[in-house]
Amino acid sequence: MTDDTTRDDLFERGMDMRRQVLGADHVERSMANVSDFSRPIQEFVTEYCWGVVWSDDGLEPKTRSMLNLAMLTALNRSHELGVHVRGALNNGVTEAEIQQVLLQTAVYVGVPAALESFRVAEKVIKEFHANA
Amino acid sequence: MTDDTTRDDLFERGMDMRRQVLGADHVERSMANVSDFSRPIQEFVTEYCWGVVWSDDGLEPKTRSMLNLAMLTALNRSHELGVHVRGALNNGVTEAEIQQVLLQTAVYVGVPAALESFRVAEKVIKEFHANA
Amino acid sequence: MTDDTTRDDLFERGMDMRRQVLGADHVERSMANVSDFSRPIQEFVTEYCWGVVWSDDGLEPKTRSMLNLAMLTALNRSHELGVHVRGALNNGVTEAEIQQVLLQTAVYVGVPAALESFRVAEKVIKEFHANA
Amino acid sequence: MTDDTTRDDLFERGMDMRRQVLGADHVERSMANVSDFSRPIQEFVTEYCWGVVWSDDGLEPKTRSMLNLAMLTALNRSHELGVHVRGALNNGVTEAEIQQVLLQTAVYVGVPAALESFRVAEKVIKEFHANA
Amino acid sequence: MTDDTTRDDLFERGMDMRRQVLGADHVERSMANVSDFSRPIQEFVTEYCWGVVWSDDGLEPKTRSMLNLAMLTALNRSHELGVHVRGALNNGVTEAEIQQVLLQTAVYVGVPAALESFRVAEKVIKEFHANA
Amino acid sequence: MTDDTTRDDLFERGMDMRRQVLGADHVERSMANVSDFSRPIQEFVTEYCWGVVWSDDGLEPKTRSMLNLAMLTALNRSHELGVHVRGALNNGVTEAEIQQVLLQTAVYVGVPAALESFRVAEKVIKEFHANA
Repeated sequence: MTDDTTRDDLFERGMDMRRQVLGADHVERSMANVSDFSRPIQEFVTEYCWGVVWSDDGLEPKTRSMLNLAMLTALNRSHELGVHVRGALNNGVTEAEIQQVLLQTAVYVGVPAALESFRVAEKVIKEFHANA
Repeated sequence: MTDDTTRDDLFERGMDMRRQVLGADHVERSMANVSDFSRPIQEFVTEYCWGVVWSDDGLEPKTRSMLNLAMLTALNRSHELGVHVRGALNNGVTEAEIQQVLLQTAVYVGVPAALESFRVAEKVIKEFHANA
Repeated sequence: MTDDTTRDDLFERGMDMRRQVLGADHVERSMANVSDFSRPIQEFVTEYCWGVVWSDDGLEPKTRSMLNLAMLTALNRSHELGVHVRGALNNGVTEAEIQQVLLQTAVYVGVPAALESFRVAEKVIKEFHANA
Repeated sequence: MTDDTTRDDLFERGMDMRRQVLGADHVERSMANVSDFSRPIQEFVTEYCWGVVWSDDGLEPKTRSMLNLAMLTALNRSHELGVHVRGALNNGVTEAEIQQVLLQTAVYVGVPAALESFRVAEKVIKEFHANA
Repeated sequence: MTDDTTRDDLFERGMDMRRQVLGADHVERSMANVSDFSRPIQEFVTEYCWGVVWSDDGLEPKTRSMLNLAMLTALNRSHELGVHVRGALNNGVTEAEIQQVLLQTAVYVGVPAALESFRVAEKVIKEFHANA
Repeated sequence: MTDDTTRDDLFERGMDMRRQVLGADHVERSMANVSDFSRPIQEFVTEYCWGVVWSDDGLEPKTRSMLNLAMLTALNRSHELGVHVRGALNNGVTEAEIQQVLLQTAVYVGVPAALESFRVAEKVIKEFHANA
């Protein structure tokens, strides 16, 4: 490798991407709640997840959002799924596309997983429109 | 619902889609190996997975392929992952895009899962080019 | 295949089986809450899960219920587990048999999974008797 | 509790049940291969899995076998699945019933899991008949 | 094996270890809530999990606690994770060490898993100090 | 954050730690096999997994190795488990401690997972001594 990007650079780049995907308000609230205990994981996630992977333009953010809906369903992580349904809407994934992604999880991950993700997604979509 | 598509229709539609994604040769070989024991699951998969979900044009096949690479990594199903890396290449997913999808799994599903999927994908990509 | 059952047929058959297992009241409430967003998954589940698999008389409903208690514990899907504990009671699985199934999960799926399923099952069993 | 069964008793009871389900030959071979390193897990499994859970007559061995096929599919443990397909055949589960259990996993655990389990089961069933 | 420890012995030894790790108050409350339905799993867990594994001095309780934080994160079992964060604090695992264990899960189990476990751990740590 | 460590620094630090844990020979062979396709994941893993997490002295390498044995068992990743059994031996984890960690997984992750990990560990331990 020859890469002199610093961890500070990655953190800043990650904060920008995170705000773009999840919304500046959401991110400010998250950062305001960061404690000494949770700071290391918040920094880790901002750097690597947002600053390295999401910031790579090898895939469009809209595609990354759809991948996350599928993966978070397979991983059974409903809290993060809710966060990324909101991100998907911000990234231009339509409700019909969210339906399609989740129907595909029914076949590959199983029906109980898909039913749970439909419940989570429906709730977030309603809140998204209520706050729009 | 008002849908008089029959199970035979779904099976035929599914076989067409399956051939388009995985290649006619691959599908003929699979069907030739079907035994009485495995026939029910082969029919089930052809109808619902290929005839219902994959045949729905609400998402492009290329997008469905990328979702599968991510989900199959999360589900730890390397055999099916191999099948769908080939399908992804047939559907126009580039090697660079496969890399991106798998790097994203490193963050969400974890490093051991991503390393395994890189190994599977690399092997299938080589075979794909050798047979091209 | 030679099967001219239509998707409408599967849906009707699935609704009948779903009512038999989960109770007509429960199913009417579920269907009343269906939105445009969740309709596709509800139809998919009714057709394939209830109309194809549960409606196959190759296994007794009582056996299918016990399989579901074990699988939903392994899959860590507590919401659906609650639904299927109720279904198991409707299908004649006794409380002692539910105990046995969940004790078996302790050995194969691990102790934390079994403890969670015991909590879910105990709550549903109490409600079942309170409403009887 | 008031239970003065000793660990030795559990081990003996477990060995009997294990031989009954998996076959005396299979168990003798397994025990002959036990090393100092693997002895503790072999004893643990014989005592608790076979001596406590499988030896409890609250469920028939045939039912326990079907639960295991479903759970091991959900847990993605193909080696143990193979062992328990053989056990299922010994316990009187028919091939048609194995098909039904695995088709049910397709809906709840997803299609890739069911396809893998069909492959494992078909192989073990063939060997079972070849050695009969 | 030659081991005439009885199941009663294991239960007593397990109760002692459970009180030492989780606190006598916590255990008394748990046992007071045991119903006829949940008694078998409580006894099973006390005997094998606490009486056999935790009571084996081949690893220090502090090490066992750290292993549990990592495994329960991987297994996505937040309720039990909360119980074992408290146990970890009782066993002398420091908050900084809990952070380190959970940061390591971010790499191997993925970021969504680690974020959830940080939330659970932070809540339990606050309650632990509030009640100290 | 205020951290001007560059990605090159992390990569170098990660290579050092990786060699220390897995052995210089093993790492040289791995790097020699790196292709253009797999280079990004190898760099990602070296930087973040080895350069950030493993290089943090908040936990001893020996403890990190034991955590990995438990997590990789829970994640059902046998290939990486083999790599980290070797790492554990290099980091001073004794065979008796490996047994203890894996027996603990039997209770929390389930018996099939523990049996598989015992098989993997036994094989790696034999090779380790054969090459010593």
